[in-house]
Amino acid sequence: MSEKKKIYKPKPISGFPEWLPETRRAEQQWFDHIRRVFESYGFCSIETPSVEALDAINAKGGDGGADTDKEMYVLNRLLSELSYEIIHKDETVPEHYSLIPIRDHKFPEHKLYETGNEPRLALHFDQTVPLARYTAQHFNELVFPFKRYQMQRVWRGERPQAGRFREFYQCDIDVINVDTLPLHFDAEMPAIIWEILSSLPGMEDEKIQIQISNRKILIGLLEGLGIENITEVTRWIDKLDKMDKNAVASELIGIGLSDDNIDTILSLALIKASTSKELIAGISTTNQNDTMKEGIEELSFVLDQLQHLPDNAVVADLSIVRGLDYYTGTVYETRFLDDPSYGSICSGGRYDDLAGNYINKHLPGVGISIGFSRLFDRIRIKNQLPVSGVSPADILVILPNEESRNLMMATAQTLRKRGYNVETFHGASKIKRQLAYAQKKGIPYVWFPPFEDGQSHEVKNMETGAQENASPEEWTK
Amino acid sequence: MSEKKKIYKPKPISGFPEWLPETRRAEQQWFDHIRRVFESYGFCSIETPSVEALDAINAKGGDGGADTDKEMYVLNRLLSELSYEIIHKDETVPEHYSLIPIRDHKFPEHKLYETGNEPRLALHFDQTVPLARYTAQHFNELVFPFKRYQMQRVWRGERPQAGRFREFYQCDIDVINVDTLPLHFDAEMPAIIWEILSSLPGMEDEKIQIQISNRKILIGLLEGLGIENITEVTRWIDKLDKMDKNAVASELIGIGLSDDNIDTILSLALIKASTSKELIAGISTTNQNDTMKEGIEELSFVLDQLQHLPDNAVVADLSIVRGLDYYTGTVYETRFLDDPSYGSICSGGRYDDLAGNYINKHLPGVGISIGFSRLFDRIRIKNQLPVSGVSPADILVILPNEESRNLMMATAQTLRKRGYNVETFHGASKIKRQLAYAQKKGIPYVWFPPFEDGQSHEVKNMETGAQENASPEEWTK
Repeated sequence: MSEKKKIYKPKPISGFPEWLPETRRAEQQWFDHIRRVFESYGFCSIETPSVEALDAINAKGGDGGADTDKEMYVLNRLLSELSYEIIHKDETVPEHYSLIPIRDHKFPEHKLYETGNEPRLALHFDQTVPLARYTAQHFNELVFPFKRYQMQRVWRGERPQAGRFREFYQCDIDVINVDTLPLHFDAEMPAIIWEILSSLPGMEDEKIQIQISNRKILIGLLEGLGIENITEVTRWIDKLDKMDKNAVASELIGIGLSDDNIDTILSLALIKASTSKELIAGISTTNQNDTMKEGIEELSFVLDQLQHLPDNAVVADLSIVRGLDYYTGTVYETRFLDDPSYGSICSGGRYDDLAGNYINKHLPGVGISIGFSRLFDRIRIKNQLPVSGVSPADILVILPNEESRNLMMATAQTLRKRGYNVETFHGASKIKRQLAYAQKKGIPYVWFPPFEDGQSHEVKNMETGAQENASPEEWTK
Repeated sequence: MSEKKKIYKPKPISGFPEWLPETRRAEQQWFDHIRRVFESYGFCSIETPSVEALDAINAKGGDGGADTDKEMYVLNRLLSELSYEIIHKDETVPEHYSLIPIRDHKFPEHKLYETGNEPRLALHFDQTVPLARYTAQHFNELVFPFKRYQMQRVWRGERPQAGRFREFYQCDIDVINVDTLPLHFDAEMPAIIWEILSSLPGMEDEKIQIQISNRKILIGLLEGLGIENITEVTRWIDKLDKMDKNAVASELIGIGLSDDNIDTILSLALIKASTSKELIAGISTTNQNDTMKEGIEELSFVLDQLQHLPDNAVVADLSIVRGLDYYTGTVYETRFLDDPSYGSICSGGRYDDLAGNYINKHLPGVGISIGFSRLFDRIRIKNQLPVSGVSPADILVILPNEESRNLMMATAQTLRKRGYNVETFHGASKIKRQLAYAQKKGIPYVWFPPFEDGQSHEVKNMETGAQENASPEEWTK
């Protein structure tokens, strides 16, 4: 270049992953696989905008955990004039102004506001708030039970941290119904997730297990025992996968539980069962209240429906409670059996009230979410992703000489019509160079149109080196 | 619900489209179709983060038009403490602070800054800046010619306006090479675009035309005539699709061109040709400089490569110049022949220098971009999208009675293994209700497992009403 330019050397942005083409191909295979299974169970796709109105998010409340509001990205139009205004302590704040935290050491009493009468927008941090808002907004146009899947990026505006994504994909399914939702769907979730996770390319040898429970069992027990700080107790029970049983027991003593009650609670929470028979046999509590009975019945039903899955694919694990008070019945987690401390790769459960803040309807649902990007990255780092070429092409048609250009194009078009992905070489270079291109792009077959009239087409298998006569209308891989 | 809640009624956000499930299915068909054709020509997929560092965008400069920087969305972490700081007129601005426009009528000399030492992030407003940044950043790991497609959302932070999207999809292909890029790829672009647009579901009856030119022809002519304000002249030529020829002529007089020159320019710009022969015959300029000759040769080559397409699919139209100085050779636009004023639905061209601001390499490229969301919405509004059910299921397996639950599940699983999408009904309701569900979800077949031992499975075609015996292992649609 004649003119010397100042060069800005681009760097990766922490928390925003980006893949090379060959890794992206594996990622596409994963998405295709997940979509195929979701659709094979009759779930329809929806996609919501990347943003929600901040008011809508705030109306939904903290289902996503107490600190989520701190982790949102809000949007501002760059250089939009007069987006901000200082309101002095003696002034009135106009409508539609939002308070922005600011440091002003000279006039700490002055407040900064974002101006404007448009709703403030934030990138969604999960797909639950968007689903709730969508279901309420389109309520009259949806068919219930509403079975939808959603595979989109979500954003968390966290401070940069190694191994933490700030932009990542989630793959969610949920079933929403009006007033009541059959347990049928609670049982469908683990079957779908098992089918997906056990056959994702690169996951075949991973030992995973879906662990399920029903919150009503533990909550019913705690209520029956007259325990009042239920949230606190369940928070400790939830740690039984990472903490020793005795350590949890002493924490429970610390918050005032009696030894007897701790024994009762822990012996329930430590139950694991593969069948409803095992589950019922394992529960020694004789004095079951209605909530607890209901939980046991529901979990038994779900287990009964999953008997067609391989041994150990799904187990009832009564220590699973999920941190969030959002869930009201069945709960799911999914772990690597050889690395349980990695945490759950796919979680969810049943909730009683999806969208009560958006619509005056009672909408119970059940859903589960695959933490796609985190899982994909783990398998990528373990070098287990399927190896594929850079190009999606099956065949490279070479250009023997400039005069054969039309023949090359026609040959490629015939092969494309038959379903193959085909690249054509861009110039009449030496054959060796054209073969090298196929090699570098990982294209498995190279097609030679006839160099002279009367000759046959030939095709070369790049892996074996075998070359044979072939017809574009008839050849198969 | 026992507790009265305050209800926030969600509203659509202007410029952020969202579809019902049945429309989303058509959108998926469009994406699948476009991806299939892109891959059938050997283009690989990449996906870049939704954001770029603002510094990277600014380094790339105004390829996207002069005002693009005003239309960006920048991200801010909500409630991140001390994100903003007022710097008073006697104070020094710390490093990494960005000036934010603010209104403060009491102290107009005080400036507001965004604090922090992280790069400021903005949602990408096209896929060209991300491609340039990606190619530079991963240069050593890519195989050239680098043929990539990209189908992502882009964002423009415009003020809300009817019919204008602020979040929308673009589907781009580009081929990038080092130092030189064969014309082969200039000819490949219109062939791919024709294949896509002529067979998108719902577009079959639209009369579209790809119009191509080569900027070197007009630029060469203008240089040869000794005209200096070339950018201004091409801007008027670009309007020949909307303005009368005489109106353009008087504008050209207005900027100081002679009548002779205007005649010469307009008679060139008004040339339309389907073949290279027609093109060459149409150009009466005898005194062609090297640039002009090169342009004619290149355009002729491209036209020659496209003779396999239907008549009128592609024409050379020498008035096409594209507004942007970014393009240096072949340029493309695509129009509805019965609605030319709608503007181009798919545009692009060849550029000499993709990423000179990011890397000290000469990277020429050629690319084209389908304005997906705008086109999809047009076909949607015209009611031309393929009609499909809400559910992707082919079959609903009904539940004759609670005892048949395992049979229903096993039947569904057999059909799924054979490639069908299958819903199972969630409860042993009246058959009429189960059929009504299939009807409402648009599921074309209803499967009846045997109600009693010894009976056969049956399947009902919901469109014709025909019902017949069938086996889950053998039935085909």
